[in-house]
Amino acid sequence: MVTNHQVLFNKEQPTGLPKPGVTTKPSSVELDIDNVPLNGGVLTRNIAVSLDPTMRNRMKGDIGYFTPAYEVGKPVTAIGIAEVVRSEVDSLAAGDVVFVWSLGIEEYTIHSADAAKMFRKFDAAHLNNGLSITTYLGAAGMAGMTAYMSIKEIIGDLKPGNKMFVSGAAGAVGQLVTQIAHQAGVKVIASAGSDEKCDFVRSLGADETINYKTEDLPAKLKAFAADTGIHYYYDNVGGDQLEAYINVAARYGIIVACGYISGYNVDKPEDVVYPKNLFNIVTKELKYQGFIVSSFIPKWLGQFMKEIPQMLAEGKIKNREDVTFGVYGAEDAFLRLFTGDNNGKVAVLIDTERAEKWNLGKQKQSAKIWN
Amino acid sequence: MVTNHQVLFNKEQPTGLPKPGVTTKPSSVELDIDNVPLNGGVLTRNIAVSLDPTMRNRMKGDIGYFTPAYEVGKPVTAIGIAEVVRSEVDSLAAGDVVFVWSLGIEEYTIHSADAAKMFRKFDAAHLNNGLSITTYLGAAGMAGMTAYMSIKEIIGDLKPGNKMFVSGAAGAVGQLVTQIAHQAGVKVIASAGSDEKCDFVRSLGADETINYKTEDLPAKLKAFAADTGIHYYYDNVGGDQLEAYINVAARYGIIVACGYISGYNVDKPEDVVYPKNLFNIVTKELKYQGFIVSSFIPKWLGQFMKEIPQMLAEGKIKNREDVTFGVYGAEDAFLRLFTGDNNGKVAVLIDTERAEKWNLGKQKQSAKIWN
Repeated sequence: MVTNHQVLFNKEQPTGLPKPGVTTKPSSVELDIDNVPLNGGVLTRNIAVSLDPTMRNRMKGDIGYFTPAYEVGKPVTAIGIAEVVRSEVDSLAAGDVVFVWSLGIEEYTIHSADAAKMFRKFDAAHLNNGLSITTYLGAAGMAGMTAYMSIKEIIGDLKPGNKMFVSGAAGAVGQLVTQIAHQAGVKVIASAGSDEKCDFVRSLGADETINYKTEDLPAKLKAFAADTGIHYYYDNVGGDQLEAYINVAARYGIIVACGYISGYNVDKPEDVVYPKNLFNIVTKELKYQGFIVSSFIPKWLGQFMKEIPQMLAEGKIKNREDVTFGVYGAEDAFLRLFTGDNNGKVAVLIDTERAEKWNLGKQKQSAKIWN
Repeated sequence: MVTNHQVLFNKEQPTGLPKPGVTTKPSSVELDIDNVPLNGGVLTRNIAVSLDPTMRNRMKGDIGYFTPAYEVGKPVTAIGIAEVVRSEVDSLAAGDVVFVWSLGIEEYTIHSADAAKMFRKFDAAHLNNGLSITTYLGAAGMAGMTAYMSIKEIIGDLKPGNKMFVSGAAGAVGQLVTQIAHQAGVKVIASAGSDEKCDFVRSLGADETINYKTEDLPAKLKAFAADTGIHYYYDNVGGDQLEAYINVAARYGIIVACGYISGYNVDKPEDVVYPKNLFNIVTKELKYQGFIVSSFIPKWLGQFMKEIPQMLAEGKIKNREDVTFGVYGAEDAFLRLFTGDNNGKVAVLIDTERAEKWNLGKQKQSAKIWN
């Protein structure tokens, strides 16, 4: 018997910030990992999970969101990495390290056979290649794929000399976008929520930064736009920053709509800020297109996995991670995503022993460790 | 000497409906057409002009619009067709019939050599082929090109069985879009401002219509969307109808942003309605893209001129025109665009004698004649 520590979804929270202990709560349950019936499925020992802003929308009850709302009393689920303990599925065996779309924030999870079909096994080339496990949840995982694939799909070839505005640039996706754009010869102006984050983003290659909490964002965007306008906007936040971009967009400007974090935690739905200048979508012939990475993984995954993990391992792309150790730390870590107290990609390392087996040494170097 | 009747731009009108006699005013000037110096340019006798909603935005003063504001005291300009009277430009000769981007709403215009370089000569195949001159300003002209080219560029191949919502469907562009979509096997729901217009739009192939002034547009859209959602939205109006579409959009839905007429004549800028559900651009992975036809004419004009005029001449595509005779009628005709009292594509026939030479017989049949 083991004690399976869990973070449960506890209460729908349609507005405001998520509340550790209220929206979610720590719990535990005894589990006989040797004998618990799997009913044709798989038991995993969970190594790490990714915490993403989009999870906030699943805590609001049924709002017609594209992924289902969390169920009260069950573990919050997230994208994660796990090791198979026992399997009744032919394609999986004990010891396999797998990438899981929907992993409970807990130490062990029993998956149905159908769910297990969606697992993706790590191939040997990507284990012990110098990258930490959590990097495979961030820059070499969903966040990196989001940055890489959305640019490929919605912008196509970045044109050297063009200008890009990246919002949320110190975040999981933004930091990758900043580097991809800069390395393609694009001039980047990036927004973030503190001077320290702005320094970090400049170290990644941003030509100009805006601390949106203390500086005049529209004025700085306008100065950067100068005579040419700004050709691309990588939008993680929506709201005021989206409106400010539309005002300085170049003709045929492209908006990659990756997130709308400014609206996720408002107190009242009417507090969400929507741009009041959409007429310019017509007059400037802008393209404003939404993106969810799962739609494009089949098309781009091979190319991504060939290019990006290697670039990360060689330091050609940098990444900053905010890694919390232990299941229960997930509650505060998730809150940091919205207060801006996080520092880069937020992930929770659940099982340090397994992570060590798959490069914890590297993990300790790259991660900001909070607890 | 002739008297050149003109409609002058008279007063900036940032909000509300344009006012005949105030925003614009009738005027006239004596012109010695045989001797007036051309300074290397061209004198045209004007046959017809197109009146388009977008002209409203040029009557507001400098609002950063993509075409310059009208100048007080000078003729209002529009897209038009004219015949060359005298030319000091080598490529043009008296008697040439030309398509002109910026033609004064007046009987004669003197164009600079630079302006004359932008003229497009009608080739013989398109004169006296059974289409009226005004049709070359509507379904076989800019409105038709807008419908045709925007679908090609932003949607690409229409998928039979998919659903489309067309707003402003009885208007110049909407009536063509409805037919193109219907003939491609797309199921069309179309909005218009009267029951009579809805009947007309159904006669063009719309499966369902909404009189947006009397019916519950969101409810009818929702019913039409049923389980599949609506795959395309051809947006001529913006505002409430845009918001209603986003709520029922299918995943990967495409919005062709062609106009925002709901916002052109508001009393106060804050009265323009903007959708409050843009978060769905992200979650449904919608593409919302603006279109101005001049950007794509070089690419598609040849194909358009091969296909569409012939289809119109054969009755395979229908069009309804609201043709006013005489320069001074332009003021009321322009107002009708916004009150909804127009009936199809609004054009002004300036010179019935020249129009007769180039098929006035056909003109009389196809046009609704107002004065």
